[in-house]
Amino acid sequence: MEHHSVDILVINGMLLSLDQSGTIIEKGSVAVNKGKIVAAGPCEEMESWRSGETIDAGGCIVMPGLVNAHTHLPMSLFRGLADDLPLMTWLNEYIFPAEASHVNPETVGIGALLSCAEMVLSGTTTCCDGYFFEDSVARAVFEIGIRGVLGQGVIDYPAPGVPNPSINIEHAVSFVETWTGKTSLITPSIFCHSPYTCSKKTLATAAGEARSRGVLFQIHVAETRSEYERMKKEQGMSPVQYLDKLGVLGPGTLLVHAVWVDEEDIRIIADSGAGIAHNPESNMKLASGIAPVPEFIKKGLTVGIGTDGCASNNNLDLFAEMDSAAKLHKVNTFDPTVMSAETVLNMATEGGARAIGLESQIGSLEVGKQADLIVVDMQKPHLVPMYSPVSHLVYAAKGSDVRDVVIDGKVVVRDTVLLTIDQEKLLRKAEAAGMEIRKAIP
Amino acid sequence: MEHHSVDILVINGMLLSLDQSGTIIEKGSVAVNKGKIVAAGPCEEMESWRSGETIDAGGCIVMPGLVNAHTHLPMSLFRGLADDLPLMTWLNEYIFPAEASHVNPETVGIGALLSCAEMVLSGTTTCCDGYFFEDSVARAVFEIGIRGVLGQGVIDYPAPGVPNPSINIEHAVSFVETWTGKTSLITPSIFCHSPYTCSKKTLATAAGEARSRGVLFQIHVAETRSEYERMKKEQGMSPVQYLDKLGVLGPGTLLVHAVWVDEEDIRIIADSGAGIAHNPESNMKLASGIAPVPEFIKKGLTVGIGTDGCASNNNLDLFAEMDSAAKLHKVNTFDPTVMSAETVLNMATEGGARAIGLESQIGSLEVGKQADLIVVDMQKPHLVPMYSPVSHLVYAAKGSDVRDVVIDGKVVVRDTVLLTIDQEKLLRKAEAAGMEIRKAIP
Repeated sequence: MEHHSVDILVINGMLLSLDQSGTIIEKGSVAVNKGKIVAAGPCEEMESWRSGETIDAGGCIVMPGLVNAHTHLPMSLFRGLADDLPLMTWLNEYIFPAEASHVNPETVGIGALLSCAEMVLSGTTTCCDGYFFEDSVARAVFEIGIRGVLGQGVIDYPAPGVPNPSINIEHAVSFVETWTGKTSLITPSIFCHSPYTCSKKTLATAAGEARSRGVLFQIHVAETRSEYERMKKEQGMSPVQYLDKLGVLGPGTLLVHAVWVDEEDIRIIADSGAGIAHNPESNMKLASGIAPVPEFIKKGLTVGIGTDGCASNNNLDLFAEMDSAAKLHKVNTFDPTVMSAETVLNMATEGGARAIGLESQIGSLEVGKQADLIVVDMQKPHLVPMYSPVSHLVYAAKGSDVRDVVIDGKVVVRDTVLLTIDQEKLLRKAEAAGMEIRKAIP
Repeated sequence: MEHHSVDILVINGMLLSLDQSGTIIEKGSVAVNKGKIVAAGPCEEMESWRSGETIDAGGCIVMPGLVNAHTHLPMSLFRGLADDLPLMTWLNEYIFPAEASHVNPETVGIGALLSCAEMVLSGTTTCCDGYFFEDSVARAVFEIGIRGVLGQGVIDYPAPGVPNPSINIEHAVSFVETWTGKTSLITPSIFCHSPYTCSKKTLATAAGEARSRGVLFQIHVAETRSEYERMKKEQGMSPVQYLDKLGVLGPGTLLVHAVWVDEEDIRIIADSGAGIAHNPESNMKLASGIAPVPEFIKKGLTVGIGTDGCASNNNLDLFAEMDSAAKLHKVNTFDPTVMSAETVLNMATEGGARAIGLESQIGSLEVGKQADLIVVDMQKPHLVPMYSPVSHLVYAAKGSDVRDVVIDGKVVVRDTVLLTIDQEKLLRKAEAAGMEIRKAIP
């Protein structure tokens, strides 16, 4: 028998491909070479494949890594700094002062490393981020070895690293140019903060720059009732309609939150081809509202799921986020059949990949795609017996059940240990940064 | 210096007493002897205490174990058997057939062992259960070494182990008599299923038996809108008012769910002194509704938090349940200040202990109370830096961060390993039971 030698071989696992036909192989193997999935199938058909690095996934589920469609990585340094407060008190008295005094290239790097560590350890292999000093974020993402769609923030106020807002788009474009084609892990993007913090000109120009460069344009929109009402009053239309009129919506646009949207807004989004990042736990914690996601799904919109930043969640565990998403929409509609486990798992994988423009590379376990996969240990008291793998992944498994993580063909987590950085050293740095930040708070 | 020798010494941890004054000791020790907490304080004041069994909790939080105020332990065998279905399809086509054919003393024991293992590994040290074949549940609870308030189910239909409903109360009373005073871990109770599955006579008699024996009377009430509307139509009053008229409410009563309650109901509950078990995730998943818990708290009701059984959640992780509780009520009221992390953590400890009648024994880390405590490892990327331990416990920590668990003065979990049973053997038994159950389902 001829042998094929590959970089990594994952054997004996239950393969959940999450491809269009929902293929499940009870006991299968996956061959990974040069960053890609080169073969997958039942173990007995994979005997010709050989590797020096074998992961035995017996008793485990092997599946595509999860996609976090919206986050602000550096904000892990502000986790738990202030909670359970009115939105404006939280922002004006805690988050903004902390950001003003303590967001710099170093703290952004530390916060991003922390977040990336948390994400890979809990099974997330791709994240879509927007923040400031995004160069530092990109370096952290690369160091941990997670995949990222990263956008330098654009806002019409003095911001960390961009004291002069008149050159905010220049900054963002320069970030895109720096990181285009640099590494397979990083896809640059442009992130406008929101319709109420960016002028019409800024929004239209930034979106145009993103479109002409073929990169994702991210924007927070329709997060709170007050944003919706203010836009209705000031512009005579909803936030989504406002963005539409400015020509911002399109297939390369990611609308973050989309909580306060009406039927007309949903139709506009559907026609535009824009994707949505749904952040149920952040919207719950800040009491913003509940996005009509079952309607989005019904109308065929592309929906991913995100955790948002750590200051408003306060964790980056997509397993927990999937559980919350499925349950929240059921109780909100009094219908236990909306938002099935399948729908939610799709949002956290293929849906998210599509929303952020990476569907040809990731989101399912298929030959030809990038090798971003996770091994979930199902041999635990809370996961045996298993009647439905999908139900267990959404309602019973936790991020901590993730045992091994492969991203871009490299083993990043093995036996629940993060291999790419010195975790202990990072925690000590984060602790020191936290002690400084605490001083900034009343 | 005179030395005091004790069974267990937990040293170097951040002590979160969760007592009435919310004492926090940055670096403290706890001495445990003969099942009780005999001393606690800053490390330097605890130097005279010695033990052969020392747990070094450096970098960890030491706190009272969590209290799961409502569950059905054996149902872990049905986890994921059927999800995302209309309530009546779920019950009639899946859960009832599975229960009818596969609930026996052996499967109840296996399911209860699984649930108890999951609970102690995720930091729950006390649970309040109601099911059938409760003797088997009690033996499992004792074997794992968790604390339990356990009620044999009473329902006016043929039930597992009680084919003749006319002797259902006899069965329940006999369970109480068998387990009274038998072990410090188990407190017997009586569990009536609901106002719509038990007659007036059954409800009044069972509650009277519980009262005369001084044991907790548990009952599901006002879980769904249809229950509320049916009771209004058939009895001309709400389910809570119906129970009140029957004389069922009192300080020894635990009302489970209480989702569909009006202002008058809340006043009645407050006057009666009955406690409430709030099960946010189960109510979300079954799309039952959202209990007005912020109102309960405002009116001074005693509220604990429960996971409900594994068939409707589908996990027993109280850390996840706390997170959901805090976030759900915020978004439901559009008020980020309701249900603070402190309030929720109280519900999961002292509030739960009070709701199930064990407040003099457990619920806080205080000298004289039973030694039910957990050590939570905070040295993780998702928990550093830490500004507020309470915020981190509710919004960021997971059950899997629990490292050590002491219950009734015995170490049940050490370094995340369950010491009291052969876990691998239990998983194989559970798997075999699951294969049989699967056959019962279409």
